[in-house]
Amino acid sequence: MNKLEHIGIAVRNLEESNRLFTRLLGVEPYKMETVEREGVRTSFFRVGDVKIELLESTRPGSAIDTFIEKRGEGIHHLAFDVHDVQQKIVEFTHDGFKVLTDKPLPGADNKVIAFLHPKSTNGVLVEICQDKD
Amino acid sequence: MNKLEHIGIAVRNLEESNRLFTRLLGVEPYKMETVEREGVRTSFFRVGDVKIELLESTRPGSAIDTFIEKRGEGIHHLAFDVHDVQQKIVEFTHDGFKVLTDKPLPGADNKVIAFLHPKSTNGVLVEICQDKD
Repeated sequence: MNKLEHIGIAVRNLEESNRLFTRLLGVEPYKMETVEREGVRTSFFRVGDVKIELLESTRPGSAIDTFIEKRGEGIHHLAFDVHDVQQKIVEFTHDGFKVLTDKPLPGADNKVIAFLHPKSTNGVLVEICQDKD
Repeated sequence: MNKLEHIGIAVRNLEESNRLFTRLLGVEPYKMETVEREGVRTSFFRVGDVKIELLESTRPGSAIDTFIEKRGEGIHHLAFDVHDVQQKIVEFTHDGFKVLTDKPLPGADNKVIAFLHPKSTNGVLVEICQDKD
């Protein structure tokens, strides 16, 4: 892993949480983005070199909706920047980690991404990501 | 907040999790440390500019023991570096956040720290920390 790229936090109401995290972090979100395929609306804050991504569900049954129903609001995933998501999928699978897809998927923030199942990573949902192109 | 200083992850068995995170992150822990007052044994990994702190309980009823009993292993807290923990305690309390202590406490890694209750921060246990002296 090159570096921590962002931390994803599941929230019920993006506008309210944007105000809360603005007070907490001392900066405003620098962008918002909807990812229809994932059923999420997101906002991004920058703190030093790391991004905080807030995620609000846009439909029942989305991953964020299911997470909040089960565990409430809170930290949803850690995303690490890698050079080559496809290569990392192969390597991690070979090494016994449970990767949720065998191909990179489009994510927010102009990235391709893949997730490692938290059962193989001490309860931490891990995303690996790289910039498109 | 100046920057994300570290991410704390609650684990059941520090040795096993050290091996797991070494495979996941591609680096070995650079130090281990016990904080008796908190009832935790910790290890630290560096990924880019951010530290990952694994936390294992050393006694029943510790904060990490209670967390794992309730929620299982996983991300426990986010720690942000600040210039002055005492001043931030005052500011955050004034701003309506629930700070768990009115004075900074000694933490691992030569720091003084304070925690914000997750009920006031969207389910995220937030640590603020600064280097001692």
